[in-house]
Amino acid sequence: MMGLTEPLHRAAYSTPHKPATIFGERTRSWAEFKDRAARLAAGLKSNGVNAGDPIAILGLNSDRYLEYYYAVWWLGAVVVPMNIRWSVAENAYSLNDSGAKVMFIDAQFSPLIPQIKAEAKGLTTLIYLDDEKCPEGLLDFEALIANNAPMEDARKSGEDLAGIFYTGGTTGFPKGVLIPHRALWFNGLSLAKLIETSEETKYLHAAPMFHLADGAASLATTAVGGTHVIIPMFTPDGVLTAIGANKITHSLLVPTMIGMLVQSQSYTPDHLSSLTHLIYGGSPIPEGILRQLIRELPWVGLINAYGQTEMAPVISALAPKHHVLDGPHADRFKSVGQVAPGVEIRIVDENGKDVPRGEVGEIVARSPGSMQGYHNKPEQTKKTLDNGWIKTGDGARMDEDGFLFIVDRVKDMVITGGENVFSAEVENAVSTFPGVMQVAVIGIPDEQWGEAVHAIIVTQGGVTLDSEAITAHCRNQLANYKLPRSFEFKAEPLPLSGAGKVLKRELRKPHWGGHEKGVS
Amino acid sequence: MMGLTEPLHRAAYSTPHKPATIFGERTRSWAEFKDRAARLAAGLKSNGVNAGDPIAILGLNSDRYLEYYYAVWWLGAVVVPMNIRWSVAENAYSLNDSGAKVMFIDAQFSPLIPQIKAEAKGLTTLIYLDDEKCPEGLLDFEALIANNAPMEDARKSGEDLAGIFYTGGTTGFPKGVLIPHRALWFNGLSLAKLIETSEETKYLHAAPMFHLADGAASLATTAVGGTHVIIPMFTPDGVLTAIGANKITHSLLVPTMIGMLVQSQSYTPDHLSSLTHLIYGGSPIPEGILRQLIRELPWVGLINAYGQTEMAPVISALAPKHHVLDGPHADRFKSVGQVAPGVEIRIVDENGKDVPRGEVGEIVARSPGSMQGYHNKPEQTKKTLDNGWIKTGDGARMDEDGFLFIVDRVKDMVITGGENVFSAEVENAVSTFPGVMQVAVIGIPDEQWGEAVHAIIVTQGGVTLDSEAITAHCRNQLANYKLPRSFEFKAEPLPLSGAGKVLKRELRKPHWGGHEKGVS
Repeated sequence: MMGLTEPLHRAAYSTPHKPATIFGERTRSWAEFKDRAARLAAGLKSNGVNAGDPIAILGLNSDRYLEYYYAVWWLGAVVVPMNIRWSVAENAYSLNDSGAKVMFIDAQFSPLIPQIKAEAKGLTTLIYLDDEKCPEGLLDFEALIANNAPMEDARKSGEDLAGIFYTGGTTGFPKGVLIPHRALWFNGLSLAKLIETSEETKYLHAAPMFHLADGAASLATTAVGGTHVIIPMFTPDGVLTAIGANKITHSLLVPTMIGMLVQSQSYTPDHLSSLTHLIYGGSPIPEGILRQLIRELPWVGLINAYGQTEMAPVISALAPKHHVLDGPHADRFKSVGQVAPGVEIRIVDENGKDVPRGEVGEIVARSPGSMQGYHNKPEQTKKTLDNGWIKTGDGARMDEDGFLFIVDRVKDMVITGGENVFSAEVENAVSTFPGVMQVAVIGIPDEQWGEAVHAIIVTQGGVTLDSEAITAHCRNQLANYKLPRSFEFKAEPLPLSGAGKVLKRELRKPHWGGHEKGVS
Repeated sequence: MMGLTEPLHRAAYSTPHKPATIFGERTRSWAEFKDRAARLAAGLKSNGVNAGDPIAILGLNSDRYLEYYYAVWWLGAVVVPMNIRWSVAENAYSLNDSGAKVMFIDAQFSPLIPQIKAEAKGLTTLIYLDDEKCPEGLLDFEALIANNAPMEDARKSGEDLAGIFYTGGTTGFPKGVLIPHRALWFNGLSLAKLIETSEETKYLHAAPMFHLADGAASLATTAVGGTHVIIPMFTPDGVLTAIGANKITHSLLVPTMIGMLVQSQSYTPDHLSSLTHLIYGGSPIPEGILRQLIRELPWVGLINAYGQTEMAPVISALAPKHHVLDGPHADRFKSVGQVAPGVEIRIVDENGKDVPRGEVGEIVARSPGSMQGYHNKPEQTKKTLDNGWIKTGDGARMDEDGFLFIVDRVKDMVITGGENVFSAEVENAVSTFPGVMQVAVIGIPDEQWGEAVHAIIVTQGGVTLDSEAITAHCRNQLANYKLPRSFEFKAEPLPLSGAGKVLKRELRKPHWGGHEKGVS
């Protein structure tokens, strides 16, 4: 019970002929999908993989990526999805840390194989995900399926380890988050409610499939026997085309993707006419873009999903009905919504005591989604996890009606003249100024104040906006000490992590003599 | 994790001032509710009750009934709700079987105390639920709350036993179904999706609170911090008044209640204008009444929830959108819908092999809602439970799209001339004849055919309908051998079990010389 293959059995039993996956021209039914997962599991077993073994993957999105997940679980083994934005060094660290001997890899990443093998000496077996001729020395994905009879489902469940998800690569060494079956199982069911999936759902995988943001929405699709439509990676045109061609009902996009989408040349709201639900999360969404979505897409249920990998990942969600710009509750759309059913949170001060309602503290959270700990990191586990309660590192306040407002990553703030300035608050204010496409606020060294508030703004063509006008605009919303003291205008998008978060570390480096300050 | 007090913590933390319960003039907030549960738990503890102890209750619905559930779980003890329709002998059997020493009882049932004590010798402590002066020798509910400081939540969860729910009293000795925390926790979350509860939900408890049909909807209300509105018991006028006065959004009623409601003098569809969801289940609904609901209440989301206590209880649900009378899928409203997310089923023959799609077999089901077994009944447990899979005893077929059609209780059929006639099929046909309020089909002795199909029909004032016209009406839908051979017209409603099922055993008795045949 609470095993991740259960929804697959349910879908294959109830609706065997219904499409499970659509990838380009290729459509596979739930019966085929189950059969392929059971054969691929047998193929892994015949190559010496056992239940409990970690099995990595490095690739762009594909239907085979989803088959990898379910085949590994069918075998009773452990998924280890690699971050496609990370350096070889970071992924090699993850491979060595997890102990994975087997890795799936696609055409995009196979040129890195020599480098990866040099750094991850434990790797013995590579499996090639793509259609082209399988490179020398690799096992062929389709051959493993064709040459092996379906095996019995190992039926792992509950506390059995389901995956090691590496996170935090932008802040130092990656941490392997240990996620048992019950944690992902819970998130699949929880998301099925929160994003309202049904057997008619066609979910578009455009966000990277290695990440649990897409992963949880994916589980919520399988839970109800919906259809997975998959594109290799996010591009504005790719998303618009896939939505039109497949009458997509649901997708999860990170805010930077949404920004790129609605600012693309091809975009008109009509392109999204089939969409019933758009889930956003992974990082704060600029208020300007959210207002645009609410105005332009009244038929789309917008859902802000907030969480983190350590919770596998959901903590709270803002339901479609709370995305309103007028009336007595017009502030709610700026929140991350209400605590998800099945989740408990508290907002605490540095001593772990509850803060008074409405005041800012750190969110600690607990649910059946809570991780078991960090792999090989007892110290960090001890600091983060206490009897199922996870210290999120996120600062937030809760209003009288239980709506949660994230102030910022507790540590992502500027300390100027002894005052704490949360970057997100300033970014929200700047983002609503006309012409601002993207903005990141960081602290830079200042002789007088220690740090000064600095805004890096992306504009069309990098044109310089009137910084005094921006300051005047922000003055309506922000205390004086929070106003940016300096501005930088750029044409190119800000550097992003694999999860779509702005890599503030990279932005800070030039100001701090190349040495790190803070985290992001 | 997966503890039943978690949603209470969540609601009391997120929305402390919101109404948790409304019972007549009495409204209590989630903060009060939590405080009262924690005090009542302490009161039980001060009277020698320990974590793990079974604690019974016998009473009509009330806000205190809900406080009982949560206080027992807060203490880490086990609920044992008594069936209010059962005889003293049946409930005494349950008390003795469970080993309960403590029982909550209300004014309605306190006259039975001497009789109960005589048969259930283990009972040491009775707690009086009502407002009137507490009878001699009983503990007072409010005094236990007033005189004890809140205790710490025992935080039971997962496989810890949460309740013993007695079932099957109509078919012989009651069986105590052992339900752990994870089973009810799962059903609360699952129902929260299926019946679409939200923080705005006002759920009306009109079905009896001892039963898991109401219990699961109740958990789905607490899971999202909705409001419980409670009336002592079902009456048509009581329900109509409560819905109007409280702007009820959700209720679960068994089909017989729905029949009585829509046939009552006071009823007009306008009375239900606030209702967004009406859940029905517990027994098959007559097709005529369901057609009336679909036609008359287009704004109400109708949901057929199918399950049984052994699954705590949900197996499948028919969503509102599938309640349509026209178009290509106009048969779906006669089904119990699709397998609920998180549940697996198979339809098998008598040897446990899958039957071909579309053919009738017995449903076996498995989910995190599966019981641990029957208390003190290893033989019956072994017959019913296999590695989490429950033999439901229900006959069904599944269509190509995964919709499940219950044919009948496998054993509730008439065997006539060697042919199996499922009672429900005949009842459905008869129920759509004008003037039929309620119908039960049973087998009665027949010299020629072994059994003959016999229809017992309730009409307004017991008027006799034209039986040849009914036969002609049924002939359009039923094979000849399935047609009723004899009819009986009655004015008074059919005898019901506590769960609202027609007690066919009682109907059969006069025909079989007072001796039992079959089950119901």
